[in-house]
Amino acid sequence: MTSVLPAPSKVITLLTDFGLIDPFVGVMKGVILSSFGGATIVDLCHGIQPQAVAEGAFWLERSYTYFPPGSVHVAVVDPTVGSTRRILAVAAHGHYFLAPDNGLLADSVSSAPGARVHAVDLDRLGLGAPSATFHGRDVFAPLAAQLASGARVVTELGPEVQAAPCVLRAPASDAERLTGEVVTVDRFGNLITNLDRARVESSRARHVAIAGRDVSLRRTYADVEPGELLALVNAFDVLEVAQRDGNAERHLGIGRRTPVSLPLSNVPAP
Amino acid sequence: MTSVLPAPSKVITLLTDFGLIDPFVGVMKGVILSSFGGATIVDLCHGIQPQAVAEGAFWLERSYTYFPPGSVHVAVVDPTVGSTRRILAVAAHGHYFLAPDNGLLADSVSSAPGARVHAVDLDRLGLGAPSATFHGRDVFAPLAAQLASGARVVTELGPEVQAAPCVLRAPASDAERLTGEVVTVDRFGNLITNLDRARVESSRARHVAIAGRDVSLRRTYADVEPGELLALVNAFDVLEVAQRDGNAERHLGIGRRTPVSLPLSNVPAP
Amino acid sequence: MTSVLPAPSKVITLLTDFGLIDPFVGVMKGVILSSFGGATIVDLCHGIQPQAVAEGAFWLERSYTYFPPGSVHVAVVDPTVGSTRRILAVAAHGHYFLAPDNGLLADSVSSAPGARVHAVDLDRLGLGAPSATFHGRDVFAPLAAQLASGARVVTELGPEVQAAPCVLRAPASDAERLTGEVVTVDRFGNLITNLDRARVESSRARHVAIAGRDVSLRRTYADVEPGELLALVNAFDVLEVAQRDGNAERHLGIGRRTPVSLPLSNVPAP
Repeated sequence: MTSVLPAPSKVITLLTDFGLIDPFVGVMKGVILSSFGGATIVDLCHGIQPQAVAEGAFWLERSYTYFPPGSVHVAVVDPTVGSTRRILAVAAHGHYFLAPDNGLLADSVSSAPGARVHAVDLDRLGLGAPSATFHGRDVFAPLAAQLASGARVVTELGPEVQAAPCVLRAPASDAERLTGEVVTVDRFGNLITNLDRARVESSRARHVAIAGRDVSLRRTYADVEPGELLALVNAFDVLEVAQRDGNAERHLGIGRRTPVSLPLSNVPAP
Repeated sequence: MTSVLPAPSKVITLLTDFGLIDPFVGVMKGVILSSFGGATIVDLCHGIQPQAVAEGAFWLERSYTYFPPGSVHVAVVDPTVGSTRRILAVAAHGHYFLAPDNGLLADSVSSAPGARVHAVDLDRLGLGAPSATFHGRDVFAPLAAQLASGARVVTELGPEVQAAPCVLRAPASDAERLTGEVVTVDRFGNLITNLDRARVESSRARHVAIAGRDVSLRRTYADVEPGELLALVNAFDVLEVAQRDGNAERHLGIGRRTPVSLPLSNVPAP
Repeated sequence: MTSVLPAPSKVITLLTDFGLIDPFVGVMKGVILSSFGGATIVDLCHGIQPQAVAEGAFWLERSYTYFPPGSVHVAVVDPTVGSTRRILAVAAHGHYFLAPDNGLLADSVSSAPGARVHAVDLDRLGLGAPSATFHGRDVFAPLAAQLASGARVVTELGPEVQAAPCVLRAPASDAERLTGEVVTVDRFGNLITNLDRARVESSRARHVAIAGRDVSLRRTYADVEPGELLALVNAFDVLEVAQRDGNAERHLGIGRRTPVSLPLSNVPAP
């Protein structure tokens, strides 16, 4: 199955685990601007925990749709940089993606109907001798500039391949409950899970179980009293456990990977 | 009283308590660029302490004048997101402001002579069903794009209203002293107060009292020896207590909300 | 010796110790855009440790070459702001630099063949009454806008002068070893030194000594087992000590200024 490639929007987003303390992100922008001065570069997120590929995969999948079609999304969470792992260039859902082939691209992206998934042939593109440790600068930035400027298209970067499966874990269910986990924790201490709106709504649950607590499912923070715990389907359409005017991570003393369960209703959905 | 609305500068500034660890700010930029690709987006500040409306009000008021006239300043420190609190669109002092109506806009802005203060009518603008928790993305970003691009003007966003008073506390005085407080602490540990230059100068004080100490008022850091405490009127025209080549916050063991007093001189001003 | 001044690229980079918690960087951008709306402003790095001039000098020298020729690099790590220290405007290696004259510019920049080094005459430029504490906003930002827009050229900003020597310390050697030090530590806990590739390669060393350990020199992280220490010449062409999938800073309990030695081979280089 094929699809028409969208026209580049000139927007390049960057998602990495580089943080903003060091000049790594700034230098990537220098390389992009050296090649394509008309790029609009947006920091999507650089606070992914070091080498946390699943966290990066989660935020990339939940965020890219808010950018203009034809944007180039560069994701670099890359524990095996310098090894022989491939680099993927993908066109899917009207957007472009560049990432190491380590499970950083969600299955919804790399296996989308009509998706084009190519392994970048660095030698053929004249990028065959990058540094061993900073492919963000030496490979991803120049490739992003070329895609965003229209100098190259995804399908000519290398052979079509199958992407490695996403490392983001899927929820598991049995007859009584659906169990997911905390994928990331935001600045406010909100515990954000891999249980999406469709699963939450079809469960018909009114409470979630986390860390031995039973937390009621509400619409928004203001629906409970200050200091109270609540669960809600958040603005990224996944289940979140929060404490109103507080910090659920600190309050509960838990974090990433903590299991979260929804009881499955016996009542059939209407 | 009315005033002519300034032409948009295409600059949009963002001030939030979202931090930069998560992709929230990046996603807001995606929404803005999806609607207005010609926007110049500047991060004014995302390090406001979670839900610290007064700190946000302080920095917004002290900072917006450094941007081009016609800039759109988006401020989102919004503890009651998802409730029925209003969203304000304001034109004042030649700039535009978008903020929740929770006291985040300084009185100098929302009560300026000629200011236009409107409550955004979300339904009329087709923004009537935002997520319950992320109005930065679902309401403020699209509105900012519309104002900055000139697609809409402030006065057509909804009815003219009176803004809630600013939550930033005013200093208090008696016969002997003027007492303010530490509003924010910067990266260097400098303790920044709500006592402005006019008040400091008219007090004719030579010292300030803070945390049981008497600290001398100087012009700049280099006027004292390394390690010594000093007070000065800083570059944002408010009183600051600092330690040269050190960190006053750590040195004194104090922080936000700590009272700071200026003795009032008996000598009449010339 | 003179050289032709490069055409401005419209790119302005900012390197400071201001951090991103406060609005200081945002306000500098406002001032730049107020004067030159066409500027492309890039945050090179704002995480330099407070007043760590040597760390700033290191990252600036290692990073500026990745930007387009004609870019203006603004560096503000400025412990003596408000004193009489000079401000330098430099053209060298096809780039422009603005910095306090406190050793922040590497000798490779300010003493480059053909470099033009000028002390900014603030009075003559109408910048003679800046705030005492925020020259980033009141002096550096307007100067950067003028250089980047082409409104002024470096050579007309003030008299030609000799820059203060760089404060970045050079390695020392004796008959048996070459000894440098850790200059900075990145987000991953990698210990980054002032020993450059040429020195490392001519030493023919296979190990480095740090904190009483003997660490083997490899090409990349993936060349050792998870948890193992290694040394490598990193993507910025200097020696780095790292722990695979770990944090060398925490693992070794050391940081900036720690000595690092390379044994000098008796074998003459081929």
